[in-house]
Amino acid sequence: MTIPTDPETGEFHRAPNAFTARITADGRDGWPVEAGRYRLVVSRACPWASRALVVRRLLGLEGVLSLAVADPIQDSRSWRFTLDPGGVDPVLGIGFLYEAYETADPSYDGGISVPAIVDVPSGKLVTNDYPRITLDLDTEWTALQRDGAPELYPEALRDEIDAVNADVHRDVNAAVYEAGFATKQAAYDRLFTRLDVLSDRLSRQRYLVGDTITEADIRLFTTLVRFDAVYHGHFKCNRHKLTELPVLWAYARDLFQTPGFGDTVDFDHIKRHYYEVHEQVNPTGVVPKGPDLSGWTTAHGRDELGGRPFGNGTPPPPPPPEEAITSGS
Amino acid sequence: MTIPTDPETGEFHRAPNAFTARITADGRDGWPVEAGRYRLVVSRACPWASRALVVRRLLGLEGVLSLAVADPIQDSRSWRFTLDPGGVDPVLGIGFLYEAYETADPSYDGGISVPAIVDVPSGKLVTNDYPRITLDLDTEWTALQRDGAPELYPEALRDEIDAVNADVHRDVNAAVYEAGFATKQAAYDRLFTRLDVLSDRLSRQRYLVGDTITEADIRLFTTLVRFDAVYHGHFKCNRHKLTELPVLWAYARDLFQTPGFGDTVDFDHIKRHYYEVHEQVNPTGVVPKGPDLSGWTTAHGRDELGGRPFGNGTPPPPPPPEEAITSGS
Repeated sequence: MTIPTDPETGEFHRAPNAFTARITADGRDGWPVEAGRYRLVVSRACPWASRALVVRRLLGLEGVLSLAVADPIQDSRSWRFTLDPGGVDPVLGIGFLYEAYETADPSYDGGISVPAIVDVPSGKLVTNDYPRITLDLDTEWTALQRDGAPELYPEALRDEIDAVNADVHRDVNAAVYEAGFATKQAAYDRLFTRLDVLSDRLSRQRYLVGDTITEADIRLFTTLVRFDAVYHGHFKCNRHKLTELPVLWAYARDLFQTPGFGDTVDFDHIKRHYYEVHEQVNPTGVVPKGPDLSGWTTAHGRDELGGRPFGNGTPPPPPPPEEAITSGS
Repeated sequence: MTIPTDPETGEFHRAPNAFTARITADGRDGWPVEAGRYRLVVSRACPWASRALVVRRLLGLEGVLSLAVADPIQDSRSWRFTLDPGGVDPVLGIGFLYEAYETADPSYDGGISVPAIVDVPSGKLVTNDYPRITLDLDTEWTALQRDGAPELYPEALRDEIDAVNADVHRDVNAAVYEAGFATKQAAYDRLFTRLDVLSDRLSRQRYLVGDTITEADIRLFTTLVRFDAVYHGHFKCNRHKLTELPVLWAYARDLFQTPGFGDTVDFDHIKRHYYEVHEQVNPTGVVPKGPDLSGWTTAHGRDELGGRPFGNGTPPPPPPPEEAITSGS
């Protein structure tokens, strides 16, 4: 994997999302919400893709939006279905995610990223626009959501959620990559300053916005859950471990233990992906045995802050058996 | 710096110490203990050399055994005196430590290591035998030690100290290097199992052997003080940080705050050496800004376990001004 580092500034930039069509209730982009029509392609290693995994679980969309899990180790052709029998996704019939990109646009020669949603009948990639994907699952797929699905992007709180998301994206989600791939550590101070600000906010309230789980929590969670396993060491974000930041550590454990969060997390995929794929950062390819992950299931005490995790909704049932995390770590 | 990794097992082996003459009270190897005759060459980055720094401070040998501090960044000619005016050690008149090796043995073509003791009049390397160097400072240099110097290798406790040292060497001092340089992590389990055993021992007694500071504590300290700064991330020894192992963390702080220990530690030299020199492990050469080091000076509570740090002796006075650590971190 070539890491896109700016030759002048040494900064890391994630490639822009090239496919930005939206799947909507009214189908105005040509892609109407429809049960069984689309396939969500993720890597469980990837924080951006993992947002969609959490949202799909919380909203109970497993039965209507099927799931393809890519091998955490990409090769030069990027994400591939080598975890599936014969190395082929059983629904899409392709070995590599890039094939769906090509079917959608034969002239496309940009990057291949997850999450991606593919139209099963045509085999075409519809979207890899990760921030939009989860918001559309929240707000356009409502007719197909389970009974008791929570409101993850409630109308009245959108301005505040958007503002928190912008700060978290710049200073947390993207900053760990900048610190890790950059030849300078410009993002480092920004990252830890923001974590301190978030700690302060979360010392007074159980969730980031309002008193229920929202998109804002999901986007922070998928970075925090990777922090000690990969960002702290591999990306050198080492002022502190998450386990040394008491408020954020309790907040992250609270979410991890909430149905729909921890049951999407595969630490084996996470660790192998980062340590094996980024040869520029870790040329030996050694995957550390640590950290000790047993703390994730310990008591967090966050219930004392009140809050209604699912608002007027209910927790999701366990994941379907075929989606249970089985790889050890 | 080429890292000596066994091509078959992927294991790391520190090169043997080629110069094993001893400086003794009776001068039986031709090198009698003598005030002002020898120069101790160290890198403050190096844990093996730092043992000698601590022992020299505790025993008050600064005035009789002078000190050369090498640049923490070696080049292809190994340790060099680029921190000194003109890049030349003012006493030995050489730019590189290898010159003292050559003067002692023109045919020598092995590795160059610190700690090293050089005979100033002849410019010859006398010894780079690090485990022997500190034991001889303890036991052969007694006539030149300060009033109140502690006994670091007391006769009655030698068997126990030797046994502890053997375990600590194999499973801690050397194991972090094996874990860091190896292409496998065979040493990793051994390391953390031993740290757990040491934690248990040190939960009941203030020091490793007896009730005073001995060689055993010095040898464990110089690895522990580097743990979170370099071994945890750079060498991937990441089951836990030292700060997450309460007994060992308090033990290490206790020693750090004892005169003669913390005042020898230069975290700037430590971090730059490991992260800049080991290109095979960290090709970008980025030196992380973390970890937060402020915890080292916090209360440790170990006095409750009793113990007499210096036995019948006294703490050393502050280091001479020219040896005070000034580089920031």
